[in-house]
Amino acid sequence: MLGFRRISTRPHAAGLWSSSLPHSSGLFLSSSPRAAHCAVRCSSTPASVLFAPRRTLSTAAQEDEPLILERRTLKNGSYATVVTLSRPDKLNALDLNMFRAIAKAAEDVAKDRETRVVVLRGAGRAFCSGLDVKSIITNPLKSVESIRKLMQRPEGKLSNLAQDVGYLWRQVPAPVIAVTHGVCFGGGFQIALGADFRFSDKSCKFSIMEGKWGLVPDMSATITLRELVPIDVAKELTMTARIFDAQEAKSLGLVTKLCDDPFEEAMAFCETLSNQSPDAVAGAKQLFNRTYVDTSEEEALKIESELQHELLRGWNVLSSVAKELVFQAL
Amino acid sequence: MLGFRRISTRPHAAGLWSSSLPHSSGLFLSSSPRAAHCAVRCSSTPASVLFAPRRTLSTAAQEDEPLILERRTLKNGSYATVVTLSRPDKLNALDLNMFRAIAKAAEDVAKDRETRVVVLRGAGRAFCSGLDVKSIITNPLKSVESIRKLMQRPEGKLSNLAQDVGYLWRQVPAPVIAVTHGVCFGGGFQIALGADFRFSDKSCKFSIMEGKWGLVPDMSATITLRELVPIDVAKELTMTARIFDAQEAKSLGLVTKLCDDPFEEAMAFCETLSNQSPDAVAGAKQLFNRTYVDTSEEEALKIESELQHELLRGWNVLSSVAKELVFQAL
Amino acid sequence: MLGFRRISTRPHAAGLWSSSLPHSSGLFLSSSPRAAHCAVRCSSTPASVLFAPRRTLSTAAQEDEPLILERRTLKNGSYATVVTLSRPDKLNALDLNMFRAIAKAAEDVAKDRETRVVVLRGAGRAFCSGLDVKSIITNPLKSVESIRKLMQRPEGKLSNLAQDVGYLWRQVPAPVIAVTHGVCFGGGFQIALGADFRFSDKSCKFSIMEGKWGLVPDMSATITLRELVPIDVAKELTMTARIFDAQEAKSLGLVTKLCDDPFEEAMAFCETLSNQSPDAVAGAKQLFNRTYVDTSEEEALKIESELQHELLRGWNVLSSVAKELVFQAL
Repeated sequence: MLGFRRISTRPHAAGLWSSSLPHSSGLFLSSSPRAAHCAVRCSSTPASVLFAPRRTLSTAAQEDEPLILERRTLKNGSYATVVTLSRPDKLNALDLNMFRAIAKAAEDVAKDRETRVVVLRGAGRAFCSGLDVKSIITNPLKSVESIRKLMQRPEGKLSNLAQDVGYLWRQVPAPVIAVTHGVCFGGGFQIALGADFRFSDKSCKFSIMEGKWGLVPDMSATITLRELVPIDVAKELTMTARIFDAQEAKSLGLVTKLCDDPFEEAMAFCETLSNQSPDAVAGAKQLFNRTYVDTSEEEALKIESELQHELLRGWNVLSSVAKELVFQAL
Repeated sequence: MLGFRRISTRPHAAGLWSSSLPHSSGLFLSSSPRAAHCAVRCSSTPASVLFAPRRTLSTAAQEDEPLILERRTLKNGSYATVVTLSRPDKLNALDLNMFRAIAKAAEDVAKDRETRVVVLRGAGRAFCSGLDVKSIITNPLKSVESIRKLMQRPEGKLSNLAQDVGYLWRQVPAPVIAVTHGVCFGGGFQIALGADFRFSDKSCKFSIMEGKWGLVPDMSATITLRELVPIDVAKELTMTARIFDAQEAKSLGLVTKLCDDPFEEAMAFCETLSNQSPDAVAGAKQLFNRTYVDTSEEEALKIESELQHELLRGWNVLSSVAKELVFQAL
Repeated sequence: MLGFRRISTRPHAAGLWSSSLPHSSGLFLSSSPRAAHCAVRCSSTPASVLFAPRRTLSTAAQEDEPLILERRTLKNGSYATVVTLSRPDKLNALDLNMFRAIAKAAEDVAKDRETRVVVLRGAGRAFCSGLDVKSIITNPLKSVESIRKLMQRPEGKLSNLAQDVGYLWRQVPAPVIAVTHGVCFGGGFQIALGADFRFSDKSCKFSIMEGKWGLVPDMSATITLRELVPIDVAKELTMTARIFDAQEAKSLGLVTKLCDDPFEEAMAFCETLSNQSPDAVAGAKQLFNRTYVDTSEEEALKIESELQHELLRGWNVLSSVAKELVFQAL
């Protein structure tokens, strides 16, 4: 899975993290850099064991980019990264350029050590209307080429580009909240399913729309739907490709939360999550993603112990310091 | 899984498909017969890639058969096959004869290239009251023999005859809708669970009744319940063998749709499904059946890509022709 | 999994089971002791095939024990074992002593051949407030030692002591009902999740609280949550560590039944279950626990057949006797 790096215990501030980390010995025998984080709710030292992306997020998107990445400062000084699909005139439909931009954004955010939560949304009237079929099939030859690019699986990689836009959000250590409004169709819905949570506007329309084109959803919905809904629901929505509203999506379990203003609620949820240990939050995401469907009891029990060991390594280092804080919280 | 055969691109009509298929080269390098289907909603050319059963359904059931198979013509000229359990005086209880007839029907329908949807229902006052315990245990010696026949697993087969009546419906490429009314008990319920969807009369009674005889459900409920309900629900219903009504079945997720007239609604759903690409519909069924519970992320991502490749093979062949239709639909 | 022993067919009474079992030949070729149980609801001969714990439960807990084990006689003369966490002044918080007592109780109950159902509850104002963090971290050195003891996985064992208190209840052949009231937090909630059913007081508060300490739940919640709730629910509750009420727990599927008096209702459920074949009940528990998440269709179909074979072995031996009873019940 993710190769989390352990990092040092410097006080947290934007851009403070150096890319070469000082080594020092911890309480436990370990050749890796000492890991530590505050075990209680304290925003001042959220150094992390599990949650250690390495590079700083690249700066604001260029004008011609179909994606905008912004950093929002949360109340405790940590950051949320807001990723906005930005082809509003096309309802943020997915052309090859958009596919690449989304996959790259997920990869960048996964490495960004300062991002504590990610919000994924669409500019304009919709989250995303799905595949830009017009751009894909206007030119038959070009379309074959585009489809090849989308479906080619690089050596040693689990996912192809089509799947990356949904799947890579699972690989981001920080939790990802998709904010849906307007329409959330086909590939757009599969992107939202790749997020950990879906906060939706009450008037948003959804569809697993691929059936309309004689296709199946192949952008990682196969591994996200099974974690959320009974199989007859997945089959019915996929076979009919019908459009359903946000209320139904919520009652089916495809939307985590229905909101009047889903972006505002998502940002409030970012605040809540930022008050938790970033390691524990990243650990929880990894714990369930790695074990929810096809992992044996033996393996699952091992994974939860291993993740806890990682967390305790940091926890114990600080335990004498943390004790007082812990007792206050009791 | 299913060994779907690719078939030629002749216009669809009942009985038109020859069993020897002409080879011809497609857009993609492939030694298999060219596959094609219309990527948009058009009933005139539903040639199929994934959905290619080979033989025509055997004709109407004989008088003494416990099962009636009928073909119903849908509005677009394609067919639904209606399978009716027909021992109404016994509430369609399952004796050895009925077991064999159901398993054979599922195998026949799986090979019938003209069936686009299957509806499974019971004649008379009930869907199915379950195992015909009286017929099984009246004669102790005969009962041992019957049980052996039900539970013997033929070499190389995943399921025995007892499991076939539920499990084989999963192997039918076309979606299967169980229409339940009256009672749906024990083995009858396990048959319904083997269908992709359950449309139920509002007054239908259900039970995982095997516990009443000191047994566990062993007709494939083990692989169907886990795709539908939380484990405590499965345990409670199985351990108590209690009877529950259709409203509870719906709220638990064991019934897909509650209807005043479930057969009428099932036929309407057949119409809906028949307007989709039969390949995409069969692909969706196969996609989720193969991946919903125990498949790794790596394998699941591969399977969705492979199925899509199959569909695109047909899709691209026709893309230049389909383009206009596609644009109309946009 | 569990190595159930087959036992003889003596009439059931407390303490009647001898540990050396007489061999005798059954209808089926088998070198194991003849197994038998009554296939219909009859409390007089609940001899069991699958459900055969070997030792009698140790007698009442000593005064200083943090756990009370009591046997309650059910209407049909069989027994329920009521396990009561008993550190009421600490809201039954889990210190090392409590961990060991719970693990031992689960092991003892698993071997008790007379226990047909287990009820797990808390004395005083709460079910369990979770880890006794104060006792764990008061002394940093001792805390490291305690954590080691909790997390050390004995050679050849699937679970460590921390996991045992939730996981071992799954290994008890008899069904386990957790009765929750007051608070059910952290480790306490994971214990309740290890039970087959959760009956809750309407005012009970729940939390996956580990995140509050910068930790992940590592007491087997990884294998129990996935059997009950969609992944976004598991992530949200784990990441936020928020407290939620019994109504929400019920609607999420984390509570099986909301009750005014959950202990009374649990005892009534014990009566219901005790009227079923103990083998079939144990078989159902084992069937779903072994197959619900990561078992292939092939393996799952085999397991249901194997369990049924075991049950039928007993069933057929008695079938001539049982026939009359069966027909009455028809």
